[in-house]
Amino acid sequence: MLIIDWHLDKTKKIPLYQQVIEQIKIKISSGDWPPGSKIPSQRTMSEILGVNRSTINTAVNELIADGLLETSVGSGTKVANNSWSLLASSTAMWNHFTNRGQQQPNLATIQKINTYEFDQNIIRLGTGELSPDFYPKEFMGSALHALAEEISQLGYAEPLGLYPLRKELCRYLKRLQVVTAPDCLLIVSGALQALQLISLGLLNRTSTLYLERPSYLFSLNLFQSAGVRLHGIPMDDEGLSLDSFRPAGNTSRCLYTIPCFQNPTGVTMAAERRQTVYNWCAKERLPIIEDDVYRELWLDAPPPNPIKALDSQGLVLYIGSFSKALSPGLRIGWIAGPKPVISRLADIKNQIDYGSSSLSQWAVHQLLSSGSFYRHLEDVRDKLKWRREICRRALEEHFTGLATWQMPSGGFYVWLRLNTPLAMNALFHTALKNGLLLNPGNLYDKQTSHYLRLSFAYAGETDLAEGLSRLSFLLKHSF
Amino acid sequence: MLIIDWHLDKTKKIPLYQQVIEQIKIKISSGDWPPGSKIPSQRTMSEILGVNRSTINTAVNELIADGLLETSVGSGTKVANNSWSLLASSTAMWNHFTNRGQQQPNLATIQKINTYEFDQNIIRLGTGELSPDFYPKEFMGSALHALAEEISQLGYAEPLGLYPLRKELCRYLKRLQVVTAPDCLLIVSGALQALQLISLGLLNRTSTLYLERPSYLFSLNLFQSAGVRLHGIPMDDEGLSLDSFRPAGNTSRCLYTIPCFQNPTGVTMAAERRQTVYNWCAKERLPIIEDDVYRELWLDAPPPNPIKALDSQGLVLYIGSFSKALSPGLRIGWIAGPKPVISRLADIKNQIDYGSSSLSQWAVHQLLSSGSFYRHLEDVRDKLKWRREICRRALEEHFTGLATWQMPSGGFYVWLRLNTPLAMNALFHTALKNGLLLNPGNLYDKQTSHYLRLSFAYAGETDLAEGLSRLSFLLKHSF
Repeated sequence: MLIIDWHLDKTKKIPLYQQVIEQIKIKISSGDWPPGSKIPSQRTMSEILGVNRSTINTAVNELIADGLLETSVGSGTKVANNSWSLLASSTAMWNHFTNRGQQQPNLATIQKINTYEFDQNIIRLGTGELSPDFYPKEFMGSALHALAEEISQLGYAEPLGLYPLRKELCRYLKRLQVVTAPDCLLIVSGALQALQLISLGLLNRTSTLYLERPSYLFSLNLFQSAGVRLHGIPMDDEGLSLDSFRPAGNTSRCLYTIPCFQNPTGVTMAAERRQTVYNWCAKERLPIIEDDVYRELWLDAPPPNPIKALDSQGLVLYIGSFSKALSPGLRIGWIAGPKPVISRLADIKNQIDYGSSSLSQWAVHQLLSSGSFYRHLEDVRDKLKWRREICRRALEEHFTGLATWQMPSGGFYVWLRLNTPLAMNALFHTALKNGLLLNPGNLYDKQTSHYLRLSFAYAGETDLAEGLSRLSFLLKHSF
Repeated sequence: MLIIDWHLDKTKKIPLYQQVIEQIKIKISSGDWPPGSKIPSQRTMSEILGVNRSTINTAVNELIADGLLETSVGSGTKVANNSWSLLASSTAMWNHFTNRGQQQPNLATIQKINTYEFDQNIIRLGTGELSPDFYPKEFMGSALHALAEEISQLGYAEPLGLYPLRKELCRYLKRLQVVTAPDCLLIVSGALQALQLISLGLLNRTSTLYLERPSYLFSLNLFQSAGVRLHGIPMDDEGLSLDSFRPAGNTSRCLYTIPCFQNPTGVTMAAERRQTVYNWCAKERLPIIEDDVYRELWLDAPPPNPIKALDSQGLVLYIGSFSKALSPGLRIGWIAGPKPVISRLADIKNQIDYGSSSLSQWAVHQLLSSGSFYRHLEDVRDKLKWRREICRRALEEHFTGLATWQMPSGGFYVWLRLNTPLAMNALFHTALKNGLLLNPGNLYDKQTSHYLRLSFAYAGETDLAEGLSRLSFLLKHSF
């Protein structure tokens, strides 16, 4: 007979049925509950573990759905015969493969964040994504209805991406004083893929990337996996500060910058500073990767034109995306740049995924060409402004004396500076136990133990205030 | 005044207006026609070049759309001021980057094929894709209408891909006797991305991949870029022939196989052979990558169950796709395998593109769960069977005595063996001049000069017969 020799921990934030699932999986993978064996009845389990029948029932159904348990009339519930092949235990042959590839795994904290993001019970105080409330159901619905009629084939798009979309994007970019041509634009599956293509196609182990410190890029292992050296440059209120900086003699070097509502600081590079940075890069012959994914999320006034708009020399690769202001699930972004660079990146994209979803490309084209994208942006700004206000009030109420901050003029982020440095990992885990998912500042600058990246874009309005209040309580009482 | 000192070549397959565009681009990039200068009138150009005004007009409008020329009332058409930054000439700074990254460029022939695929005037005799005629406009239309109502958010999907889709895929795989669970499935952007993830996450410079020779994989630089060694194994009529083969002592080695309607040979691995291969791999401790993207394209009878269905030991990574039988533009495929392997691959996918288009995932889910996917497959088989028949007749009529072949029982390809070996590159280019796009056999096996990969799936029915007739004429008279 199979034995239940574990206890559930009701103080844990992990739901009880999930604890049951985890324990049963351990039993199966350890061989204590072998394939084909009959598991204890639900009544027995609920009595021994001291929980409701329904909790056990949820867990068992989940395990059946996962194929680990199976049930047949009259003979109760058994461990499925193929359960081992579904679990880790019997996959020794793959084991030495899984840490072998050249690509490093994600940072441990990022892996945890990615997992907990799908836990409904947690308040996400750092997520760099619009809340589902922002989804433009009506606009997107009209676009899909239109596409149902319009699309008459869905083959691979052209190597650079759907031509009508590139055309439309040129028009969009013209509003920002960026003059480009469909041939100089590559559609990608989000800005992250743009960076992946750049790391695969343009950089290598001799390359150095200069960038703001802190920066989003420090939280990725993308460039590190390619052996690229990241070299942080300090920032001030007007963005990247080049005063005390001189690049080394290396020929393969680039500047990476997020000039609008920078991730994680929220700082926007001033117009004059953009010109300074551009001139300096032109003089130093330093190409620029301009990551402008937050541009359309301005809340007070439109930000200065892109650095790309100053680019008379083909110096700038300009990255944009529909993930931040429209919908990350579409996975559509773009790179604009000199044609030979774009061709090289397109060739690589072609080698790794044969282009982005044509369906998504058509959907974005529809939203842009019908103008709904621009109407949607107005909605987004209204709602986001109100969330920024909620956040500002909560910060003033709960964090005065505990931290300092500057409210950004757009984007998602408040770069909260704690008055006392803290052990970032401990804070992350304590917060998690208290139902809060944080993005600790050391993700974006390994040296820091002073900062948190807050986002007012994701958590529900009530949750945002509640989460910040709970966080301040933790900071006051647990640290 | 700007001078027109070139001629158009009316014997070329390249449309005249495109020749005009190319020549003007050369003039601009060389500096002969500098930014800001007024170009000759359309009448002058049409007279000097001896073509219709409309040809010149098309070319000029195209160049205006591309931003290379600009026009203003009263002052005619000028070379745009920013034209240089749109062209290659002034991008010296990027030049040493574009051949620097670790990823090798596509093979030259593949690059050419990718370009000419978007030339409407060419007959594509080797394309591994269903013709646009197969697009299920009605089914896809209903799906999109349904999604317009159903989708209420389009955020990032879960790290492994949309849960309802993975659930539905488990149901689909069960029909093939593959028992898996949503946790052991990763949604990817087509099978090519599955291979990309495997190369980044599981393999490295010490790895050897055994595979059929010839194979699709030889036409990719994906694994070669990661430093993986490809080692071809001969095939017979029943698939991979392991008789004379012994793997080397290397610990990081895998078998890659396309057991159904293999690309490029069209051969399907017999049921018994599958068992032999599986047993042998289990004995040799050789994990298997099973690429089963052509499975649903059977025309005579369903192929034997996947090798994955025999997998009691978690030995097999099983790759599938909706690109071949449904629509490549959706860019949706999957990998099923042992959980730790899938988690590793998911972590990498998360690092390189944050998941596949949620919109595409919802669309596939809708088509699967409504059953339209299965109804669509019946249509596809009917139409494809007829095309195979057209191809068979054309081959018999034109290639008897010139080549030998075996008609496949499904998939897209006929692996045509020429009686006389030929210079593959010369054949490819001669065919191109004659309006035929070929996939020469040496893409799939560098050593061969005997084969062509024909596809009866893409070219229109008339074009298919016409193209094969034209090809046989070339073979008889130019070689």
